[in-house]
Amino acid sequence: MKEQNFKAKLATLAQTVDKALQDWLPLNDEGRSANLNEACRYSVLAGGKRIRAVLPLLLAEMYQKPVKPVLRMGCAIELIHAYSLIHDDLPAMDNDDFRRGRPTNHKVFGEAMAILAGDNLLTLAFAWLAGLNEFDVSEAKVIEIIKKVASAAGGEGMIGGQVLDLAAENSNIDVAALENIHRLKTGALIQVPVACAALICDAPEKDFDKLSEFAFKLGLLFQIVDDILDVEGSLEELGKMPGRDASLGKSTYPGLLGLDSAVKMASEIHSAAISALNGLSVDYSLLAEMADFIYSRKN
Amino acid sequence: MKEQNFKAKLATLAQTVDKALQDWLPLNDEGRSANLNEACRYSVLAGGKRIRAVLPLLLAEMYQKPVKPVLRMGCAIELIHAYSLIHDDLPAMDNDDFRRGRPTNHKVFGEAMAILAGDNLLTLAFAWLAGLNEFDVSEAKVIEIIKKVASAAGGEGMIGGQVLDLAAENSNIDVAALENIHRLKTGALIQVPVACAALICDAPEKDFDKLSEFAFKLGLLFQIVDDILDVEGSLEELGKMPGRDASLGKSTYPGLLGLDSAVKMASEIHSAAISALNGLSVDYSLLAEMADFIYSRKN
Repeated sequence: MKEQNFKAKLATLAQTVDKALQDWLPLNDEGRSANLNEACRYSVLAGGKRIRAVLPLLLAEMYQKPVKPVLRMGCAIELIHAYSLIHDDLPAMDNDDFRRGRPTNHKVFGEAMAILAGDNLLTLAFAWLAGLNEFDVSEAKVIEIIKKVASAAGGEGMIGGQVLDLAAENSNIDVAALENIHRLKTGALIQVPVACAALICDAPEKDFDKLSEFAFKLGLLFQIVDDILDVEGSLEELGKMPGRDASLGKSTYPGLLGLDSAVKMASEIHSAAISALNGLSVDYSLLAEMADFIYSRKN
Repeated sequence: MKEQNFKAKLATLAQTVDKALQDWLPLNDEGRSANLNEACRYSVLAGGKRIRAVLPLLLAEMYQKPVKPVLRMGCAIELIHAYSLIHDDLPAMDNDDFRRGRPTNHKVFGEAMAILAGDNLLTLAFAWLAGLNEFDVSEAKVIEIIKKVASAAGGEGMIGGQVLDLAAENSNIDVAALENIHRLKTGALIQVPVACAALICDAPEKDFDKLSEFAFKLGLLFQIVDDILDVEGSLEELGKMPGRDASLGKSTYPGLLGLDSAVKMASEIHSAAISALNGLSVDYSLLAEMADFIYSRKN
């Protein structure tokens, strides 16, 4: 597929995700939780690339399986991603005023509501995952998925990475330590929807490790490119302040390696991500194009 | 059972819960999550009456079923309870410095870690619930339990009550509105372990509504007595500042009804809780004694 065609395809898939989230998230109503629902929708429906939900859709296409179960699962992961951003942006954490070109959740709804909105989205994510049995996913798989997601989102995954990230602020860490932070903080929540999609799509056992390795590299690539864009990008392109990470005293790949070496590393990981797919039981060109897209993105 | 004997029994059951939490919570280690685990253990292992986990143990005894599955489930609910207290105490929320006679989580570990510790406990709770299939709970029941708990802990339950509670601060609400707040904020997380225990213990269908009504009344009773103690109690007895709720501009039963009427209401709800159990398929004296205990507690 030509690059432009794949971009258009990704945009269509992201729209599918947006539409599903729009439909599935509790609506504003006149009842007790109106503000809560509004705060949740504000952050979840702020757009974005939706790669955590799009990757499962690509797998459903590759394995020729129904879209709906993987869409529901991917959307649950998007809820967890959204909650983590809301809490990350809080004054006690990264203290960010802008996200995707708009004021952050607590700037609009206040800190108390932002904390509760994050808590609610995490809770709702597990409700959606538990409801996968209504989407023709077997009970055994539903339970395995919930275990995988809880592990990826918890202290051994995303939250653990966040703890390390906070501890590493304004301190000197090496590239291995930085990679470990990203593996947990960002990588775990990119790997897990791929692993769960493989499970839902009945991928052959021998594909699991390849897909997992690919998703790991993709998460790493995503982060390195993010760091490079943070140096090179503009506010207009990024929707957030460039140089923000460096000013927070956070370690970045360009900061540790220099910009040129970081760019070279991105190139190597891009290749490694695609190599990881060698021998997959189905055509993996969609995932390879996804890696190309992440590698060459400008925002 | 004599009141003193039942108190001793409750203390023993609470110890069983404490021991299980001690064993099951991730340990401090030298690795990445040491601080996170420490922060989580600090709040979860702070003691308390453990009624959310003890109620399921009473049901296991009544229905003569194994302890371990209901213990695991009840402990997961205790994690959710602990997370909600950590987040409630944050400066952006109730801004409390003390809880159970000790500094609150964020006073010890800082706000960022307190937010993450709460997030982690909520995530871990769902991991434990999903793992109930390893405790001889059928897959179908595990999924139903996760749905029930997510609903009770989310925007239609505990978090919804928290939103209402914040909105009601420094405003005039009536008794019905206050009861609605407590039904969601406190009641939902007392009802749900009872409902899940009934499910795990294979209670007859006809017992479900009775147990649910009992647990609802028990939650309400718990809150009214809490409010009364907040007026009458001492720092020493309560482990927190008496009069704290009133000074936060929170509505209380004694505040809305006067102390005498609140005491009368507590008496009526105590009776109603026990009446709700009429016709249960098994001897319910343990639950009746639990209601007596909640009614007459001093802290």
